[in-house]
Amino acid sequence: MAESNTTRLRVFSLNCWGIRYLSKHCRQRYAMIGELLSREEHDIVLLQEVWSEKDFLCLKRKLSSTHPHSHYFKSGVIGSGMATFSRHRIHDAFLYRYSLNGYPYMAHHGDWFGGKAVGMVILNIGRLAAHVYVTHLHAEYCREKDSYLPHRVVQAWELQQFLRHTSSGADLVILAGDLNLHPQDLGNRLLRTYTGLRDSYTETAKFDGCEDGITLIADNPFINPKELCPFEKGIRIDYILYKGSGRVSIQCESLSTTKGSVPDHPFPYSDHEALSAELQLGEQDCALAELVDIVTEARTEVKVGLYCAEKMRYTAARTGVMGLALLLLELAIAAVPWLALGTDQPFPRATFYLLGVLCFAILITTFLLYIFYTMEVKALQGAEDQMRLAVGSLQERLRGFPLAQPLNPLCRPPDGQDPCPLEPEE
Amino acid sequence: MAESNTTRLRVFSLNCWGIRYLSKHCRQRYAMIGELLSREEHDIVLLQEVWSEKDFLCLKRKLSSTHPHSHYFKSGVIGSGMATFSRHRIHDAFLYRYSLNGYPYMAHHGDWFGGKAVGMVILNIGRLAAHVYVTHLHAEYCREKDSYLPHRVVQAWELQQFLRHTSSGADLVILAGDLNLHPQDLGNRLLRTYTGLRDSYTETAKFDGCEDGITLIADNPFINPKELCPFEKGIRIDYILYKGSGRVSIQCESLSTTKGSVPDHPFPYSDHEALSAELQLGEQDCALAELVDIVTEARTEVKVGLYCAEKMRYTAARTGVMGLALLLLELAIAAVPWLALGTDQPFPRATFYLLGVLCFAILITTFLLYIFYTMEVKALQGAEDQMRLAVGSLQERLRGFPLAQPLNPLCRPPDGQDPCPLEPEE
Repeated sequence: MAESNTTRLRVFSLNCWGIRYLSKHCRQRYAMIGELLSREEHDIVLLQEVWSEKDFLCLKRKLSSTHPHSHYFKSGVIGSGMATFSRHRIHDAFLYRYSLNGYPYMAHHGDWFGGKAVGMVILNIGRLAAHVYVTHLHAEYCREKDSYLPHRVVQAWELQQFLRHTSSGADLVILAGDLNLHPQDLGNRLLRTYTGLRDSYTETAKFDGCEDGITLIADNPFINPKELCPFEKGIRIDYILYKGSGRVSIQCESLSTTKGSVPDHPFPYSDHEALSAELQLGEQDCALAELVDIVTEARTEVKVGLYCAEKMRYTAARTGVMGLALLLLELAIAAVPWLALGTDQPFPRATFYLLGVLCFAILITTFLLYIFYTMEVKALQGAEDQMRLAVGSLQERLRGFPLAQPLNPLCRPPDGQDPCPLEPEE
Repeated sequence: MAESNTTRLRVFSLNCWGIRYLSKHCRQRYAMIGELLSREEHDIVLLQEVWSEKDFLCLKRKLSSTHPHSHYFKSGVIGSGMATFSRHRIHDAFLYRYSLNGYPYMAHHGDWFGGKAVGMVILNIGRLAAHVYVTHLHAEYCREKDSYLPHRVVQAWELQQFLRHTSSGADLVILAGDLNLHPQDLGNRLLRTYTGLRDSYTETAKFDGCEDGITLIADNPFINPKELCPFEKGIRIDYILYKGSGRVSIQCESLSTTKGSVPDHPFPYSDHEALSAELQLGEQDCALAELVDIVTEARTEVKVGLYCAEKMRYTAARTGVMGLALLLLELAIAAVPWLALGTDQPFPRATFYLLGVLCFAILITTFLLYIFYTMEVKALQGAEDQMRLAVGSLQERLRGFPLAQPLNPLCRPPDGQDPCPLEPEE
C-alpha cells in the first residue's frame, strides 16, 4: 500500500474550532469531520484546535481502520490543540513550544493558555522519510493595531529555525496549519524564503475552492463578517506548504478547499475552511538576497516589540514602586498615633485594611508583570541575536564566502561540487 | 587557520557559578577564567551559569582577539546562563527550552527562573559543519528523595530529541555542559545510547585530572563536602560528549580537568571543575536492544512523575474548593445579621476582613498551582506519548522492519545498502 503511494500523497488540513461547550455544534461538526476523513482516506491529516483530548480520542476510534497511526501534541495549560492522523507509520514525534505566545492576562484571547507550538512527526512513505509539521500561530485580533505582531514574527522565526534544523535528513517536508498570516505577511515570507517551502495554493496546477484561496470566508455562518473588515470576502491564513529534496521533488497536482457549506448538512465543518492537497514530483529554490531583506525586516519588527516590552516592564516597575511607597506611607500614618500614645487613629480601620490589601495587590500584580515582561524581553532579545547572526552569515554567503551548513540543507550539492542554493541535492 | 584545525579540535567546558553578589569571588574568578581562556585558545568554549549578561560581555571583550565569535543564549526570567565562544565562525544559533524545569515556588532552588535549555551553534571548521550543543540540566538537590527526577528525565529525553533531529546535517557533533547526571544515571544512558554520543572521559587515550574524572570535588573550597554525601571524594556530572559522521570520525586524544586549585591563585575557577578535551578521528556505534530498555525505564520514571503531578493537582483543586467553601461560609455568617435587621455583627470586622483576605489568597494560590500542575501533567504526558511511539518504532526495527529515518542519522548507510546501525555512513 505504502509503495504505491510514493508518487501521490494526499494531505488534509483543518482548524477544527473545537472548544467544547463554547464552539457552536462542536459534537456534530466533529462527527462530520470524522465522516469526511474516513471517506476521503487522505494519507496525512493535520488538525488544529482539537482542544479536547476526548475529541481526539473519539476521532482516533473513528479513523482506526483508515488512519491507524496518530499523534496528539500536548503543551501549555490547555494543550496545543494539534493532532495528526496518518495512513503511514509514525516513527518519531517532537514538539517545539514557541518562546512567546501572547499574554496570560489577555485571557479572552486565550492564546497564551493554548501553548502554541510546532509539532513534527516522521513518517515512512514507502522508502521515503517524510518530515511532517503541523502548527498554529498566534491569532491576529486587530490588523491595524496588532500588538501581537512581534510575537507572531518570533513564532515564524522559530518555526523556520525548527523546520530547517530538523528537516535536513528528510526526503520530503510538509507543513500545514493555521498560520494566522496573510500570504504576503512578513512571517509568511520569512518562513517560505528561509526554508524554501512552497505554497500549494500558488503552485497548484488545478484549484477548486474559494476565490483567492481564502480559508476564513465571510459566507461561513460561524463568522461575523465585520471581523474580517476590510477584507470583505475573507482572508487566506491556512496553508499546506511543501518541499522535496535531492532524492524527491514535489509538485502540487491539485488543491481544493471547502466553500463554507457542506452538502446535506446544515452547517460547515468549522469556522475555517479545510484544505486538501494532492502532491507529486516537483522542484524548489531559494533566493538569498530576498532572504536577507526579509530577515532584516523581521529583526526591525522584533526590535519594535523589544522596545514596547521594555517600556511595559519599566511601567510595571514604576507602578510597583508607587504601590510600595503608598504602603509605606500608610504604615507611617498608622504609626504616628501608635508612637504618640493615646492619639486617636486618624483613619477608619476598614479603610486602613482595604488600602493595605490594595497596595499588596498592586505589588503582587506588578511583580508578576515585571517577571513576565522580563521573560518577554529575554525571548525577543534572543530571537534578535539569532537573526543578527543569521543576517551576517547570509551576507557573507552572498559575498561568496564558503558556508559549512548550506542555507537550505535540502539544496546541498554533492561532495566536491560548489554549493549553490538553486540546485537540488546529490 | 581553520583548515589546519580540521584534524585537531580543543573543547573547553565549565560551569562558572556566576551569580553576581552571591557566588564567592565572582569578579576575580571571571578574571581568572578570562585569563585561562585567552592563554589556552581552545577552539570552542562552552560555559554554563554565566547568569549575568554583563559578565558575558566582559568575557567577550577580553576574548575578542582569541575567540572572535560568540553567542549568549537568553531564556526564562534570568536567562539560560549558557554562553559559547569560538575561534571559528558561528553561522546559526538555535535554542530549545525544556518543557519542565522545576517549580517557581521552589525559589531557593532557583532552577525554574533560569529557563534551562539546550543551545546549539553551527560552526565552520574548515570545510566541516560542526553542530555544537551546550546545556545545563536541573540540579539534583537530594539523591535519596529526588522529586525533580521526572523533570530531569524529561529534560534528557528532550535533549536527545533536539540533538538527534537537529544534527542529521552535521559532520561532527559536540555536546558539553553540566548535565547534573552521574555517568550511569538513567538520563545519561538515555542520552548517550539514543544519540550515539561518546563520553570523552571513558573514551580518552590520555587523562589528567581528578580521580574517576569527578568534576564536583570535596577538595574544592567552595563546596560543602556534606552535600556530596555519600560520595566522599565527589561526583562526575560535567561532560564533553561527541560523535562523528560518515565523513568525519572523532576520537578523544586527551582529556584534562582542573583539580580544585589554580597555581598562583588563592581559589579555584568555580565550584565545578573545568573540562578540556582534545579531539581527533574516531568511530561511533549504537546498540538497539539496550536503547529499548532505557527508553522503557525512562517511560516508567515519567509515569511516576505523572502520577505525582496529578496527585498534586488534585490536592491543589481540593484546597481551592475548601478555600471557596470557607469564603462562602464567612459570607453566609456575615449575611445573617444583615438579613435579620438590627442584630449585631457576630464577629469583629478586622477578623472578617483578615479571613476574607486569607480565603482569597488560598483561592489565588491554589488556582495558580492548579494551572502550573496542569502544565506539568501535559508536558509529562507529552513526553510519555513520544517515548511510547519511539519504543514501538525501535521494537519494530529490532524485529527487522524497514525504517525511513535511521535511528541515528549519522549511521545512515549509502543508497542501495541495507540500513545497519553499527556501520558508519557512506
